[in-house]
Amino acid sequence: MGKKYVYLFSEGNSSMRDILGGKGSNLAEMTLLGMPVPQGFIISTEACTKYYEDNETISSDLEQEIYSYISIMEDINKKKFGDVNNPLLVSVRSGARASMPGMMDTILNLGLNDEVVQGLAALTGNQRFAYDSYRRFIQMFSDVVMGIEKKRFEVIIDKVKKEKGVENDIELDAEDMKRLVKEFKDYYKSIKGEDFPTDAKKQLIEAVKAVFRSWNNDRAIVYRRMNDIPSSWGTAVCVQAMVFGNMGITSGTGVAFTRDPATGEKKLYGEFLLNAQGEDVVAGIRTPQPISALRDVMPEVFNQFIEIAAKLENHYRDMQDMEFTIENGKLYMLQTRNGKRTAAAALRIAVDLVNEKMLTIDEALLKVEPKQLDALLHPQFVASELKKIPVVGTGIAASPGAAYGRVYFNAESAKAHAAQKEKVILVRLETSPEDIEGMYASEGILTARGGKTSHAAVVARGMGKCCVVGCGAIEMHESERCCEIGGNLVREGDYISIDGSTGNVYLGSVPTTDVTVSGAFETFMSWADERRVLRVRANADNSADAAQAIKFGAEGVGLCRTEHMFFDTDRIAAMREMIVSKTPEQRRHALGKLLPMQRSDFEGIFKAMKGYPVTIRFLDPPLHEFLPNEDKEIRELAGEMGISFDNLKATIISLHEQNPMMGHRGCRLAVSYPEIAEMQTRAVIEAAINVNNEGYEVIPEIMIPLVCDVKELRYVKNVIVKTADEIIKSSGVKLNYKVGTMLEIPRAALTADEIATEAEFFSFGTNDLTQMTFGFSRDDAGKYLDFYYKQNIFESDPFGKLDQTGVGKLVKMAAELGRSSRPDIKLGICGEHGGDPSSVEFCHNIGLNYVSCSPFRVPIARLAAAQAAIKG
Amino acid sequence: MGKKYVYLFSEGNSSMRDILGGKGSNLAEMTLLGMPVPQGFIISTEACTKYYEDNETISSDLEQEIYSYISIMEDINKKKFGDVNNPLLVSVRSGARASMPGMMDTILNLGLNDEVVQGLAALTGNQRFAYDSYRRFIQMFSDVVMGIEKKRFEVIIDKVKKEKGVENDIELDAEDMKRLVKEFKDYYKSIKGEDFPTDAKKQLIEAVKAVFRSWNNDRAIVYRRMNDIPSSWGTAVCVQAMVFGNMGITSGTGVAFTRDPATGEKKLYGEFLLNAQGEDVVAGIRTPQPISALRDVMPEVFNQFIEIAAKLENHYRDMQDMEFTIENGKLYMLQTRNGKRTAAAALRIAVDLVNEKMLTIDEALLKVEPKQLDALLHPQFVASELKKIPVVGTGIAASPGAAYGRVYFNAESAKAHAAQKEKVILVRLETSPEDIEGMYASEGILTARGGKTSHAAVVARGMGKCCVVGCGAIEMHESERCCEIGGNLVREGDYISIDGSTGNVYLGSVPTTDVTVSGAFETFMSWADERRVLRVRANADNSADAAQAIKFGAEGVGLCRTEHMFFDTDRIAAMREMIVSKTPEQRRHALGKLLPMQRSDFEGIFKAMKGYPVTIRFLDPPLHEFLPNEDKEIRELAGEMGISFDNLKATIISLHEQNPMMGHRGCRLAVSYPEIAEMQTRAVIEAAINVNNEGYEVIPEIMIPLVCDVKELRYVKNVIVKTADEIIKSSGVKLNYKVGTMLEIPRAALTADEIATEAEFFSFGTNDLTQMTFGFSRDDAGKYLDFYYKQNIFESDPFGKLDQTGVGKLVKMAAELGRSSRPDIKLGICGEHGGDPSSVEFCHNIGLNYVSCSPFRVPIARLAAAQAAIKG
Repeated sequence: MGKKYVYLFSEGNSSMRDILGGKGSNLAEMTLLGMPVPQGFIISTEACTKYYEDNETISSDLEQEIYSYISIMEDINKKKFGDVNNPLLVSVRSGARASMPGMMDTILNLGLNDEVVQGLAALTGNQRFAYDSYRRFIQMFSDVVMGIEKKRFEVIIDKVKKEKGVENDIELDAEDMKRLVKEFKDYYKSIKGEDFPTDAKKQLIEAVKAVFRSWNNDRAIVYRRMNDIPSSWGTAVCVQAMVFGNMGITSGTGVAFTRDPATGEKKLYGEFLLNAQGEDVVAGIRTPQPISALRDVMPEVFNQFIEIAAKLENHYRDMQDMEFTIENGKLYMLQTRNGKRTAAAALRIAVDLVNEKMLTIDEALLKVEPKQLDALLHPQFVASELKKIPVVGTGIAASPGAAYGRVYFNAESAKAHAAQKEKVILVRLETSPEDIEGMYASEGILTARGGKTSHAAVVARGMGKCCVVGCGAIEMHESERCCEIGGNLVREGDYISIDGSTGNVYLGSVPTTDVTVSGAFETFMSWADERRVLRVRANADNSADAAQAIKFGAEGVGLCRTEHMFFDTDRIAAMREMIVSKTPEQRRHALGKLLPMQRSDFEGIFKAMKGYPVTIRFLDPPLHEFLPNEDKEIRELAGEMGISFDNLKATIISLHEQNPMMGHRGCRLAVSYPEIAEMQTRAVIEAAINVNNEGYEVIPEIMIPLVCDVKELRYVKNVIVKTADEIIKSSGVKLNYKVGTMLEIPRAALTADEIATEAEFFSFGTNDLTQMTFGFSRDDAGKYLDFYYKQNIFESDPFGKLDQTGVGKLVKMAAELGRSSRPDIKLGICGEHGGDPSSVEFCHNIGLNYVSCSPFRVPIARLAAAQAAIKG
Repeated sequence: MGKKYVYLFSEGNSSMRDILGGKGSNLAEMTLLGMPVPQGFIISTEACTKYYEDNETISSDLEQEIYSYISIMEDINKKKFGDVNNPLLVSVRSGARASMPGMMDTILNLGLNDEVVQGLAALTGNQRFAYDSYRRFIQMFSDVVMGIEKKRFEVIIDKVKKEKGVENDIELDAEDMKRLVKEFKDYYKSIKGEDFPTDAKKQLIEAVKAVFRSWNNDRAIVYRRMNDIPSSWGTAVCVQAMVFGNMGITSGTGVAFTRDPATGEKKLYGEFLLNAQGEDVVAGIRTPQPISALRDVMPEVFNQFIEIAAKLENHYRDMQDMEFTIENGKLYMLQTRNGKRTAAAALRIAVDLVNEKMLTIDEALLKVEPKQLDALLHPQFVASELKKIPVVGTGIAASPGAAYGRVYFNAESAKAHAAQKEKVILVRLETSPEDIEGMYASEGILTARGGKTSHAAVVARGMGKCCVVGCGAIEMHESERCCEIGGNLVREGDYISIDGSTGNVYLGSVPTTDVTVSGAFETFMSWADERRVLRVRANADNSADAAQAIKFGAEGVGLCRTEHMFFDTDRIAAMREMIVSKTPEQRRHALGKLLPMQRSDFEGIFKAMKGYPVTIRFLDPPLHEFLPNEDKEIRELAGEMGISFDNLKATIISLHEQNPMMGHRGCRLAVSYPEIAEMQTRAVIEAAINVNNEGYEVIPEIMIPLVCDVKELRYVKNVIVKTADEIIKSSGVKLNYKVGTMLEIPRAALTADEIATEAEFFSFGTNDLTQMTFGFSRDDAGKYLDFYYKQNIFESDPFGKLDQTGVGKLVKMAAELGRSSRPDIKLGICGEHGGDPSSVEFCHNIGLNYVSCSPFRVPIARLAAAQAAIKG
């Protein structure tokens, strides 16, 4: 006796979600609750896993098991597969553990053949309905099971309509449907070389295989990656007796939510159509009626439905999304599930359910997906408008929100047009630090290259601006001031719309919704703050970002990237003078010009953060990032700087690197040019002294980046401490400060016990750490990772979701080694992962003190931290 | 009572080398043996370490300790510091644990001042000698202790000579010397603002400090890095009573070796000068006599010296290098140490000492420095010629040997001129795979950029060609067919000479010695092979390299880089066709052209290796390496390929990467284009079948590079196994093969237990592993690592010597994890470290099965492996 792979609805319940899938377990639960459910059986997710293990075959054991369940199903429904007089027709639907709406395949009306269709016609007294169902089944089966595209059949329909001189399908009569059935079958045979299968059992087995296969179609793989669903889960298959809502005016079909999925308001929300099948509601040919109208048409059915809906919501203690069909005045429930909802609705429902005593606060906190909060803090496209517009390209969703505007291809134009009150979208091959002002001025940024942690992505998230990167559909023709997106020519000044939450790009302007933060948000987030143990800081490079971070609940700055302060027009000149200097004296002279600017930046941030800790990372990027590449620009700059073109060009060539990410950057700059660290120390310490004189109590945290060895850290730390202590001593006031390191090089993690003898804190820079641990250049990985997703080698982007097996092992090891030599060491994370819920949970579990993320992700991190604490 | 820092010679012995240094402990040992040694004391290496801990100061405790030892020394020598009638003069010399000849500073004749010099003159009856000694002391003290360059004083000497109308120093008389003393002191005062110090004790303390400081001068730091000497060791300081070999014709001085340091022949070898001081022997003004001539002049002294020499060699059981002085017919031993010797001499002496029963075989094996064997296998510059020629630039010694030839600036010219029997040196900014033929044709390669594992370095080592990379002194003017080296203009066709063992570059042609492998080499290496446990393989990419490897004793190929086979003119075309292909079918078509070539390459290697295992790494470099960069070349290539310039240019742009080292390469290529792995599998398997049909028994090992995750490995392995098994099945013969991975990504090491479930072997690719673990781009690190060496942050190049603390920890962890899930997994290393002795020792200690290195380093690895086994 082998493993059991098939379950009747009456054999399951909602706790069996893992093996029955969401749809299946809920059908079983409703059966258990005595609700009217057309009965059937579920082929488990384990059967799907086995199907893949067996090289995409269904074993004969499983086939026999399915057949025996068909017999039981026939008995329960008192109908028979393939029986002309009393045929059992079934729907075959996917149903994974997690809801993946629309990603996988479904087949309706299975069981029809040339004989059974006549029986169906007799039974319903409706020839057109029967043959329409049949031709739909042929079409669906051919498409889903046999891979003959649906549109091939549409061509035949169009031909018949043309011959008849009509425009709509609905104008085709029973005879036309019969003709379509015949032509569809002929076409099928011409392609496949064999007749359309007439054996209902064979149809079923093939349909089951097709549903299993659809688990690995491209869109399902992408959906899983976006939603952290493992490919190992597999899908279950629900085989359910068909009921017909199109048997006349006492029949109908509909969908309804127990609360408003857009606002969360507590009222039944949905719509229905009389004399119709589910498809018709979606097809939009007839306008459905609001669910409340059912009360007038079929009061008893309505009351029964109301009762069921209430019972289900109470039972699941969550808002339900239900599908039902009425067949000849009898209500059947086809599905229930926790309803998808907007972020605003999610918060309101969570808070309401606590107030209604249906949920505890902890349960309510666990109900809301942290990532959803993003939508609350950024504008989104109006969903109904979006439906009308085709996607012309899809890139990596790098910074959430939605934006439309006129396209400009360089930062200068973007800035100039934004100044004239135009809404601007900056479109670039990739951005560089020189583009920052143009990025500020734009509504959104779109790049053809780059990944989740490319320059554009990181900067845009910091600004809270919508951004799509690595959009392969773009072909740039910058010099001609145009580009092609998915083959469509887009000229400078044309409107496009981009969605930083999905990565989609649209032509024209799609209207957006406003940001709405309801009162429920405050309540809900205060609950989260009570529960969480992890501190949440923000990455902020200036006082505006810092103020934004405080607004979103940040408890400090975990990462202030000082180089971002050097790109302003007046500052970059001094920076460049520093870079072309030949002696420490020349460098000090140039750095002297930067000192007051940087000091005043720090004062602004310290004040904005009101005494919360601020971690300042010293200069990190390779110096060539501050210099131009093109001869024309080099010539201009040389002129401005009063040095020769050859001299400047030679400097730029000497700074060129094969792999700048592993080049002369981070603390390696401070080792070569200690005077840079001296200047930055001076700026930090003087700023802290000045601000503390105004009554604040700042304890600045100086962070040395890219350390790989304790001696290296010691060398740079000595420069900092010597400079700082001299300034403090001569100021005559007391000031505490900390010196720590950004732990982002594998070797630093491996030798963290040594590093910790010098570092007072570690802030894990998981962007770089991921990069080095995988050997993935974050600027280049996008291209080849696509192949990895397609082959299910990777299921998520390691730059988005912390890789706990490899990178996480290193982080954990470093945390333990660090604590072993300095028990009170402060540990945090400041990579992009600081705003990713699963990564936040990992940080909680290994006992870090805080996470730091871009200001707009602070609420996400707060909620994720609370959830981690509750789960722990 | 504090720690003891000062030791009389009579308080020490040769086992105290660590604290007394080499020179000091040997002086103590000779004292112990009753040999005639001018007595003195040693300030220990621990005092040096403390000096640095105390921020470069000498504590007053140590100062007092030194003073008290001066008193004792005065008593022993019956002379007195600063005593006009009976003055004690001393030499102050450095002496570290390891010999660092000429790297640190020495001061002679210390104790002289205006009064003492008169006493010395009276005592010796030689005014000129006394004042000459004094002016030398002033010059040396001012230079070493006070930082006043020696040449400033030479200017004064030149002036005096000019005024007197003489040319040589020797023509200056006692009065001239007196005048020089006065002018030197005046000059000293004008610079320092104070009189030259007259107090002998003060002179001594300052001299001691200067010797301590010289431990960290630039050349000492470089020497330590080249010779793996830790900076923490510090130097001792020997203070020894001066004896004078220039007191007349019954005095003299000399140096001698107990065996010939050039050949190893057993005979006293050396030279001496009568009436002279040590300096004079070196200065070369008078020609010294061979040591045998001493027999005729002073037979008793000679016999005494012969006896001492024999006693010392027997005592130390090694060839001795001795310095002596004869003062008024009395012999004094000033130094003995194990003598430096050529590689040939080292082997002969080691074998002879075993035959003379002075050493066991194990002891003899430990006597030879493995790296020295390099010199046996490559030509070297004739040492005497080298002395005459200044170094114009120094780069990284990338591949040993010496070469001279005419300079050409591109591979094409190099090849053309070599074909005309010219000796050619290829000089490039950096090399790329397209240069390979030109590199083959050249005597040596010199590049301005790159590090120890740059393309030029790796390829040159594989070819056994002399190579210097990253020579910053070069300014390239390729378009004008010239360059500057250290400011000297070098035109195409000019001669230069490069030394790949030191990194030095010379103008003109320096003659080279031939390679000489004596019979002692065979004996010695056979002893090594008996002792070692580690297997030694070679990295070889073609049958010629493989044959070379066998000649040097390799027991297999540990790394065959298949991409090197694709750069020949006839092959690169097919490779390029493959790269620009748009579909798998097009790619397969192009790959089909490469198949027969690659198969025949493998057949050649398998045959050359005579059944030894061969590990074949599948395609590794990013594809853009096979395509040109310049528009001109792209246009030409597009023409050849029959595609449009725009099309080809677009392909090249799309392949561009920010950080190619972490880009689309290694097994990432096989994941994207499995058809490449299919073709390579076919070539390997068919070649093995063909060769085995001829009677060989090849078990090919297929190595998948750059793996980071077990699923990725599984995917590529499946492609390989499916292809291989089909070919084997249809061939009808039996063939075993292994599939393993190059372990070179930190994440693979961290998850090695998972990886080992699929990999039958790991070959640690420590080049890339070092790169990712440190975050150092090996192409770029040279520039910033210089700062690290200067600051003593790093003491060796992590790409040359395996970093055991970080990278080694990862290797050890991976070895253990790998064995935990596959106990019989085969473990090896195939990075550059496979030929580095300390790294080989590490590999032995953690239990790897083999190391693999370039063919010319195989003997080094064999000896290092034997030494590791003996030490273990």
